[in-house]
Amino acid sequence: MGLNLEYQYRVQDLNARYTEAIDEDRLESWPDFFRPDGKYLINTAENVAQNLPLGLMFATSQAMLRDRIKALRQANVYEAQRYRHVLGAPVVLGDANGIVTARTSFVAARIMHSGETMLFATGVYEDRIALEGDSTLFAEKKVIIDSRQIDTLLAIPL
Amino acid sequence: MGLNLEYQYRVQDLNARYTEAIDEDRLESWPDFFRPDGKYLINTAENVAQNLPLGLMFATSQAMLRDRIKALRQANVYEAQRYRHVLGAPVVLGDANGIVTARTSFVAARIMHSGETMLFATGVYEDRIALEGDSTLFAEKKVIIDSRQIDTLLAIPL
Amino acid sequence: MGLNLEYQYRVQDLNARYTEAIDEDRLESWPDFFRPDGKYLINTAENVAQNLPLGLMFATSQAMLRDRIKALRQANVYEAQRYRHVLGAPVVLGDANGIVTARTSFVAARIMHSGETMLFATGVYEDRIALEGDSTLFAEKKVIIDSRQIDTLLAIPL
Repeated sequence: MGLNLEYQYRVQDLNARYTEAIDEDRLESWPDFFRPDGKYLINTAENVAQNLPLGLMFATSQAMLRDRIKALRQANVYEAQRYRHVLGAPVVLGDANGIVTARTSFVAARIMHSGETMLFATGVYEDRIALEGDSTLFAEKKVIIDSRQIDTLLAIPL
Repeated sequence: MGLNLEYQYRVQDLNARYTEAIDEDRLESWPDFFRPDGKYLINTAENVAQNLPLGLMFATSQAMLRDRIKALRQANVYEAQRYRHVLGAPVVLGDANGIVTARTSFVAARIMHSGETMLFATGVYEDRIALEGDSTLFAEKKVIIDSRQIDTLLAIPL
Repeated sequence: MGLNLEYQYRVQDLNARYTEAIDEDRLESWPDFFRPDGKYLINTAENVAQNLPLGLMFATSQAMLRDRIKALRQANVYEAQRYRHVLGAPVVLGDANGIVTARTSFVAARIMHSGETMLFATGVYEDRIALEGDSTLFAEKKVIIDSRQIDTLLAIPL
């Protein structure tokens, strides 16, 4: 129990800081939540159910994530809107070799420059999280989105 | 403080696993979160305020919950859509005789097969939760929904 | 870690009880979550980014908050709708002199009397929270809303 409580706290805290960085438009710090060899994947639940694992986005290192943010800034797609994530409590599935596996449900709202607010995306994070001393970093983050509508999702990290 | 923290953790963890089972369409495991004599009730806040406690759904045993899932699968109403719950932190109200009482706010989104996502239901769980050793099960779960619009709610567990 | 875990628990618990009081229409108890000299501010993220700190609402004492609730009840604007907040995990930023600073993301739904449910407001709480023994009270609560559309927000506490 004591160990699970600490795991839950650390998973929850990592994801809270991770989503806050996105919502506050501190995208340049987004790759810092990953290990140098960290993997990041976005896919739809439908694709996962059909064993189509390629996904909407796939990065296999922190360097690829940094490149993505640079491209995003140059494309200027991000500035006109804001996002707000709210996450449920993590379900800790297990731990082995210093890696905790957990699932966390999320909803994300999009707030347009006009002020209009909409429910933008829902889904679950399937995380493999490396704990080393006080350090807590994503070894792998899979974002499984519930909707099959995906086009606008490509613009921002989730 | 130490006890409340453990209670909050256990309530939160139970509800996180409970809603995940619904959202991942593992409905056959839904009754397993209840004691054999567990009670389950859905009602609207309006009815509760007017002392109309009968509710939209009322089950007084795990066996009744299993029957409900069988009926739901036969009716085929569930397959064309997905759900996603996100819950707030539980407010632990007290404990007596191994039963913890807690309230937890929730929002539930519905994702149609077309990809359209909508805010589907909001409300609060009023839970009586039995703690026995490592076991954490619902002795009673009341789902109080904020909206008076109820028709579609009857299709799935909340 | 142990200290942060306790802080996170206390911040989370305070905000869970605070939003429940609003959602359950127990507005008269809303000022009780603040210290007598507690500050309360609502502002938009856009205003904050432009260093326009005056805000949509600004109160510098519990007495001002009580006055506001009295005015709200007399105006009768609150009765026809319900609200439901769901909050993410707090990000604890630090503590000094018995005050914990934390940020917490929120979404709030509005449920009209007709039953229609809409995503009403999203944003972040920037809280300064006074811990004294078992007492946990807001020394300052800043509500930073993501949308620039603000008119209806003035009716209720957030």
